[in-house]
Amino acid sequence: MSTATEKVLRRRLIQRPAEPGARQTIYDVIFEADSPLGRGFDIALLVAIIASIVLVSLETVPEYDLQRDPNSATPTSRLALWFWALEWVLTILFTIEYALRLYCVRHPLKYAFSFWGIVDLLSILPSYLTLLVGRSAKSFVILRSVRLLRVFRVLKLWRMMSQADELADAVWKSREKIIVFLAVVLVAVTISGTLMYQIETVLMGETHESDFTSIPQAMYWAIVTMTTVGYGDVVPHTTIGKIISAALILLGYSLIIVPTGFVSAELSGKIAATTEHHRCAQCGLSSHRAGAVHCDRCGHRLDEVTPDETTPEASPA
Amino acid sequence: MSTATEKVLRRRLIQRPAEPGARQTIYDVIFEADSPLGRGFDIALLVAIIASIVLVSLETVPEYDLQRDPNSATPTSRLALWFWALEWVLTILFTIEYALRLYCVRHPLKYAFSFWGIVDLLSILPSYLTLLVGRSAKSFVILRSVRLLRVFRVLKLWRMMSQADELADAVWKSREKIIVFLAVVLVAVTISGTLMYQIETVLMGETHESDFTSIPQAMYWAIVTMTTVGYGDVVPHTTIGKIISAALILLGYSLIIVPTGFVSAELSGKIAATTEHHRCAQCGLSSHRAGAVHCDRCGHRLDEVTPDETTPEASPA
Amino acid sequence: MSTATEKVLRRRLIQRPAEPGARQTIYDVIFEADSPLGRGFDIALLVAIIASIVLVSLETVPEYDLQRDPNSATPTSRLALWFWALEWVLTILFTIEYALRLYCVRHPLKYAFSFWGIVDLLSILPSYLTLLVGRSAKSFVILRSVRLLRVFRVLKLWRMMSQADELADAVWKSREKIIVFLAVVLVAVTISGTLMYQIETVLMGETHESDFTSIPQAMYWAIVTMTTVGYGDVVPHTTIGKIISAALILLGYSLIIVPTGFVSAELSGKIAATTEHHRCAQCGLSSHRAGAVHCDRCGHRLDEVTPDETTPEASPA
Amino acid sequence: MSTATEKVLRRRLIQRPAEPGARQTIYDVIFEADSPLGRGFDIALLVAIIASIVLVSLETVPEYDLQRDPNSATPTSRLALWFWALEWVLTILFTIEYALRLYCVRHPLKYAFSFWGIVDLLSILPSYLTLLVGRSAKSFVILRSVRLLRVFRVLKLWRMMSQADELADAVWKSREKIIVFLAVVLVAVTISGTLMYQIETVLMGETHESDFTSIPQAMYWAIVTMTTVGYGDVVPHTTIGKIISAALILLGYSLIIVPTGFVSAELSGKIAATTEHHRCAQCGLSSHRAGAVHCDRCGHRLDEVTPDETTPEASPA
Repeated sequence: MSTATEKVLRRRLIQRPAEPGARQTIYDVIFEADSPLGRGFDIALLVAIIASIVLVSLETVPEYDLQRDPNSATPTSRLALWFWALEWVLTILFTIEYALRLYCVRHPLKYAFSFWGIVDLLSILPSYLTLLVGRSAKSFVILRSVRLLRVFRVLKLWRMMSQADELADAVWKSREKIIVFLAVVLVAVTISGTLMYQIETVLMGETHESDFTSIPQAMYWAIVTMTTVGYGDVVPHTTIGKIISAALILLGYSLIIVPTGFVSAELSGKIAATTEHHRCAQCGLSSHRAGAVHCDRCGHRLDEVTPDETTPEASPA
Repeated sequence: MSTATEKVLRRRLIQRPAEPGARQTIYDVIFEADSPLGRGFDIALLVAIIASIVLVSLETVPEYDLQRDPNSATPTSRLALWFWALEWVLTILFTIEYALRLYCVRHPLKYAFSFWGIVDLLSILPSYLTLLVGRSAKSFVILRSVRLLRVFRVLKLWRMMSQADELADAVWKSREKIIVFLAVVLVAVTISGTLMYQIETVLMGETHESDFTSIPQAMYWAIVTMTTVGYGDVVPHTTIGKIISAALILLGYSLIIVPTGFVSAELSGKIAATTEHHRCAQCGLSSHRAGAVHCDRCGHRLDEVTPDETTPEASPA
Repeated sequence: MSTATEKVLRRRLIQRPAEPGARQTIYDVIFEADSPLGRGFDIALLVAIIASIVLVSLETVPEYDLQRDPNSATPTSRLALWFWALEWVLTILFTIEYALRLYCVRHPLKYAFSFWGIVDLLSILPSYLTLLVGRSAKSFVILRSVRLLRVFRVLKLWRMMSQADELADAVWKSREKIIVFLAVVLVAVTISGTLMYQIETVLMGETHESDFTSIPQAMYWAIVTMTTVGYGDVVPHTTIGKIISAALILLGYSLIIVPTGFVSAELSGKIAATTEHHRCAQCGLSSHRAGAVHCDRCGHRLDEVTPDETTPEASPA
Repeated sequence: MSTATEKVLRRRLIQRPAEPGARQTIYDVIFEADSPLGRGFDIALLVAIIASIVLVSLETVPEYDLQRDPNSATPTSRLALWFWALEWVLTILFTIEYALRLYCVRHPLKYAFSFWGIVDLLSILPSYLTLLVGRSAKSFVILRSVRLLRVFRVLKLWRMMSQADELADAVWKSREKIIVFLAVVLVAVTISGTLMYQIETVLMGETHESDFTSIPQAMYWAIVTMTTVGYGDVVPHTTIGKIISAALILLGYSLIIVPTGFVSAELSGKIAATTEHHRCAQCGLSSHRAGAVHCDRCGHRLDEVTPDETTPEASPA
């Protein structure tokens, strides 16, 4: 049984109301996706989240000029009115959702202080906060920043992905390797950045123009280069700088591939072991190597059970 | 037997004319590639498709000035005349091909409304439509758009690749993971884009110039950066922006590698299992691990049969 | 036994002089790298090749101004004189090497028309050709082009890599997949290029500036983008263009990863099988899985023989 | 037992003082991380190193203007005074650390001339050297260069990573493949660089502007392109140059993926074999395949021992 499924079961054990009734029904619709109503709720929520993100994003586009007026939270233009209305419709919907979640769980405080409880609260708070912020020119920056906080609603999306926990597990398991990776990058970036700063400024002198104005700038260049992003806003201008730069690219490319391989191997090791999901009828082991004919724990033949059939109660014997 | 081969067999069963004759012969030449004539037809079609794509592309190069005159569909210059003539030759060839396909299959309507039937129709329709579009200045944009539709002829290329179905299968099988990948990207892009927009606009103020003019622009930057494309048209200008940006690059790089590994592992798992194609003479299993000496299902020695020999009727015993 | 070793053995069988003497000794020094003299020759050749490439490259740097004078092949400045002298020293050395190779092989013509024979001839020919080309202003471009041909001396480097053949094998074995990859790229590039051309030119109109001046230009953009090179010389300028562009980047990124995985899997399958190089003392099989204790062909225990010990005559029994 | 652990044991055997006392206690705190004091020392060192790197980097930012005054090593502004003070605090701390290391090891000279001994010396030397360098305008560049040498303190970070040796091993084991990779890159870069230089300069002529001013410049472009960094400071301007460039990108992309796969495969082969760390209670083998139930050397069941439990003395039988 995967960690993700375990988490769902554990939460259900703690939070699902024991006695049947309205609260239990609401719990099943909101927190689970097994029933048609639950799936419908999920899809509605998905649409609301994406609409909300699109809204927050579009508000900042200069053409719509919605954030530019520091004197009013209530918009004036026709389009801005629509934006404003839709924003409040979504906020009220998210508020109802939050209230229902608080109502239907067995331990509301436990939910309110859980990660998702805080995310749900953060999804509605910014809209209400904009009402409290005064409409003076001074508070314009604060107002704008508060409005932007609504973008964290995108995190609600994360909860809907059943595979997200599995992904988080994979990242968590390779945390040591990621730290090693970051340390390798830090060492490589520091040394190559300093080297390039030294070469470009010493060789170009004070008279010529150099993009490597300081070591932090050179380190920024080194990160942008080693990850092969390569914006091109900081580039070497001298011949020797280009030669060193090309050498560093190749070196950094070879170096960065090593810890990348670590994570990739960790993950593909995990996947390779669970490619085919025959459940063994004798011992219950669910992950076997691709193409396996016998269970490699107990030796029972696997072909009686069809792939991807998940029936733990299928083997009474 | 692979899914690709199954598809060919299924189509043959339904569409190939039962009685020998002209229609069956044409069917074999056009739809299959086993006979010398069939292969010849495929090569001719390949040449015609590529010539057609080159033609559509070159017509838009300003130097040739073919699309600029809104008053005539018939070109005036010498080169344009050649282009015009070749275009109609290709259109007539594709029309004949389409007519023959309709003629030789058992169920013409079934073919006409299949994916490839629509592609074949789309390959010839735009050329004829340009005749219908009026030659006024107003219809210039429409005319040009219609002409560009001919580029979909490139899809005809896809049909010719025997491995295309296998590829499509691999993509289809990892669709869930691709959706997770897209959701991860959406979350990461939204949050990092908003963060950079906030930092660059708050820090730069209204007076300085910032590339992050809006959240959609910042999200565009985040996608371009996280996929390591890195155009450099949108870059951070402040020191703090560069630091945050470098941190986001490393974070995004680590994050995006995870779902990338999923697809890659899915695929390499598939490949690894089928690297060598000895068919087992006893049980008929066709995929074994590289270097395997015995069949890992039944234990029969594999070396009696040479690799890549595909003779399902080789084992009468 | 690997294909690379087989090739060396086959060549030795055909070309090595049968009777001991000067020719056989020269053959061993030049064509093989087992003796100290042979290794010394290889290192000397390596230095000569790299010096030659550096020379050809530096000659084109404007500061040295060696190619700019169309009236003389013989240089005038002091530095240019050194370049000219070194060039002729290297040419004469390569000529001697070519002559010795022709002298010591059993079938000189067979060698002269082999791939490496032609490379060796091409390494010396350009220098002599510059003497023949007239010194008029007209022949300047030809002269310069001929001089640049010397850069093909870098191919001589390839022969020295024992693993090059193995690499070439891996590429050759995945040729079908590379063709599929190129076809996928062609289809994706054509459609996304046309789409972006249409969007950017229709939306920007004739008045605004667009980087997508023609479909070939848009296809160039698509290739540069999909391979994540991302120069930034062609970028979308409209909001809708950026949205489509971001979507195409993600799509193209997901698509291009699939055939990339094919090649990678092909290769890692090959490598995985040969990670540890114990030679089995009973059956002689040299590639086993990492950590294998018994030979997986014959079942003989592997630990009597130490890893990486390459003694084919070690098992007399 | 991994190579990394072996190295620690070997060093302890040689350098740890045999008799208990102050020297042995200091050795355990400084060189090992098993005790709470040892871990505390490691964290303090980590903070000091990172603070030092941040300091060296920030000093070069023009706004702080610390390096610009050639007449004084002692700074004048308030902020510069803080920087100067912190720098000397860190230098004295690193000096004490170096002295303690020299004091507590059994063979101080052996340590002083080891790699880490030299790194430790280099961490403090630059600061003292700045006192010796005269304060004339001439010695400004030297002074600045010497100050930058402090950046090598980042190497001290490397020692703290237990997995660094493992990483270094993986790189060292694939050194042959890295050389092949570099040779492949050299050949590809030389030929494609020359080709592009020829095309862009011949086609553009002397009148037009070309980014490919020389072959080294063109090789720089080729490296930047093939590694998909793609700065965009050197790009083709002609149509034929763009076509060739796009073809080279695809070719180079296909080529560079091959040796990349080599390293990646080498590494993932290593990882795959050691994913789960059950130590076999019978034969002591510590690396098994993920999900293995029996030891694949001796067949003993593995589940009696919990994963990641490293007790070599657990099997008295």
